[in-house]
Amino acid sequence: MNATLHELETPALVLDEAKLDRNIARVHERVHSLGSVLRPHVKTAKSIDIVRRSLVGEPGGITVSTLKEAEYFFAHGIHDIVYAVGIAPVKLPHVISLIQRGASIAVITDNVAAVHLAGQAAAKAGVTLRMLIELDVDGHRAGVHPDSELLLELARSIAASRHLELRGVLTHAGESYQCRDLASLRALAELERSGSVRAAQRLRAAGFPAPVVSVGSTPTGLYSASLEGVTEVRMGVYMFQDLVMAGINVCTLEEIALSVLVSVIGHQRDRGWIITDGGWTAMSRDRGTAEQPVDQGYGVVRDVDGHALADDLIVRSVNQEHGVIARRDGALPDFDQYSVGSLLRVLPNHACATAAQHERYHVVRGARDVVATWERINGW
Amino acid sequence: MNATLHELETPALVLDEAKLDRNIARVHERVHSLGSVLRPHVKTAKSIDIVRRSLVGEPGGITVSTLKEAEYFFAHGIHDIVYAVGIAPVKLPHVISLIQRGASIAVITDNVAAVHLAGQAAAKAGVTLRMLIELDVDGHRAGVHPDSELLLELARSIAASRHLELRGVLTHAGESYQCRDLASLRALAELERSGSVRAAQRLRAAGFPAPVVSVGSTPTGLYSASLEGVTEVRMGVYMFQDLVMAGINVCTLEEIALSVLVSVIGHQRDRGWIITDGGWTAMSRDRGTAEQPVDQGYGVVRDVDGHALADDLIVRSVNQEHGVIARRDGALPDFDQYSVGSLLRVLPNHACATAAQHERYHVVRGARDVVATWERINGW
Repeated sequence: MNATLHELETPALVLDEAKLDRNIARVHERVHSLGSVLRPHVKTAKSIDIVRRSLVGEPGGITVSTLKEAEYFFAHGIHDIVYAVGIAPVKLPHVISLIQRGASIAVITDNVAAVHLAGQAAAKAGVTLRMLIELDVDGHRAGVHPDSELLLELARSIAASRHLELRGVLTHAGESYQCRDLASLRALAELERSGSVRAAQRLRAAGFPAPVVSVGSTPTGLYSASLEGVTEVRMGVYMFQDLVMAGINVCTLEEIALSVLVSVIGHQRDRGWIITDGGWTAMSRDRGTAEQPVDQGYGVVRDVDGHALADDLIVRSVNQEHGVIARRDGALPDFDQYSVGSLLRVLPNHACATAAQHERYHVVRGARDVVATWERINGW
Repeated sequence: MNATLHELETPALVLDEAKLDRNIARVHERVHSLGSVLRPHVKTAKSIDIVRRSLVGEPGGITVSTLKEAEYFFAHGIHDIVYAVGIAPVKLPHVISLIQRGASIAVITDNVAAVHLAGQAAAKAGVTLRMLIELDVDGHRAGVHPDSELLLELARSIAASRHLELRGVLTHAGESYQCRDLASLRALAELERSGSVRAAQRLRAAGFPAPVVSVGSTPTGLYSASLEGVTEVRMGVYMFQDLVMAGINVCTLEEIALSVLVSVIGHQRDRGWIITDGGWTAMSRDRGTAEQPVDQGYGVVRDVDGHALADDLIVRSVNQEHGVIARRDGALPDFDQYSVGSLLRVLPNHACATAAQHERYHVVRGARDVVATWERINGW
């Protein structure tokens, strides 16, 4: 007989197995129907149990955001890894060590200085280091413009080193999180695709190899009209979904697979507050919905089975180990429904940030049967 | 020969040993000069190496925010523990297990329902559970008002159980973080002290024991004019200090002992951005300075030795593993000073939140000699 949620010490991270599987299937079908494949970004889940499910029917490569993720998934048998954060020179020996142990790692950069340092480190170690040029299609963060001279300069500087291998281009249309409707999402997805394909074509026209055209974010991955010319799509949040994604209509609240189980520890009746043990250590400080049309505070409150409540409750504020739940409209909730000791589940603003506060997932099948505990990693 | 900061993989949490020791000494002297003693709150540091230093010259008891902290510090020989988050009924078996193994744990609550459940659990296990009544002096969060009838009702319900022992009162004037000047801080500190002492006197006048009057927060602890009637002060952030504390003049920027070491991984020259590998996983999503007179973004940038830079740089935005540094005034920084691969140190908004993102402290003596690595715990 399985444990139930009532036997867990709170706060605890809960993962709905059926929703996880549906989210994974949805993206798999979407990406494959457009003729591409998925290279899951493991930075959200950071758990081999989850990532294995996301790799079913895919070529088997993953995307990581830290070398600790690379080490962990390599130790679990995954060899094909793209490290999708611009390489910091101090990390080159670690990357090279992974390559020497048999991992196939590609690193990314957007500047010639990093290319030179990578070439020197690879030459010294006698290894070949694969590189992708990071593109900036939307002014979001890092990368070079697809139409820039710098793109070709980077390709020349990579090609100039016998120990570097240019593999192609990679971009992340991070501005997709700021979209407010599906039309602008679709437009950004096309900007991401067309910019990446154009950059790869410029490289090829100049005589450089560019077999890889890697794009992705959960919103653009789900709302691309075409993936022509794209060789792989990177996405991570899609496995869990979250309130930020729901706020841009990429998912519904019912599709969010992740929640935080909390205990009611007291009431402040005159203020309409239900006090829980779900603070920012459990939810994270992420306020990604603050600038969306519907501000969800620190999370939307559900009953222990994950179902909507009659009261429209959100977590209005958090301290380190305290959450303060209240009705969105400020009216008094029906306190009798939330007696001291009762359990609630809170849907998170940002799945990556909330999961990063926890060391394991409690996997539920149906409403509250805990069928597994899956460990995850954090840190560097 | 010691390692230096240049040998660490970034991002990494750096702790300045001399500043830590001075911060601890300052609070020790302050609290003892007012005739009280310290019960350090270990929720900020979560490391035995640090907490041992904070206990020098103190009675030896600590405050915890989770039972994982209680387990960890108990395993390191600390027995006298106040668990200062309102007890969740589901955690009672764990508390009782600690007591049965020899820990002296006091739990807190502000409601009769929790008292009844605690009494039942303690009776069933045949142990005596120590309880403190949580007071609300400033409308911040949980607790009963010092002048309320509920205070005496709680005392009666605790006294009604042979297996519960009333130890006194506890409060945390959390609104002190909202203060903007020292005069309002001093006023709040006095409200915290006088309310707690008054509540204890009411309990004693009604025939209940109340040997413990426990107060504290870093701002009120440092700016109390009197601690008359207070038997212990609980503080945690004071060990490290942070930008939020500096923003209410509780410390200077030079006193902040904690910083995050990051690598420059690229530039977006036209936007004035320096891209680093210090994202929200390294800094946390805490924006505690956002509502202060000086908004510090996600942190104030220092050079690798911890010294101020000529450019007034802050972390203007973060993604999961990226930080975007820019001048506060929006002007272009002197990019040549921040070449790809160079190291910077970022002072955090909120020491508790930033430290909670890391698994260890890299302890520096002087500017950059790493003399120790101290592990810390997270989670529950």
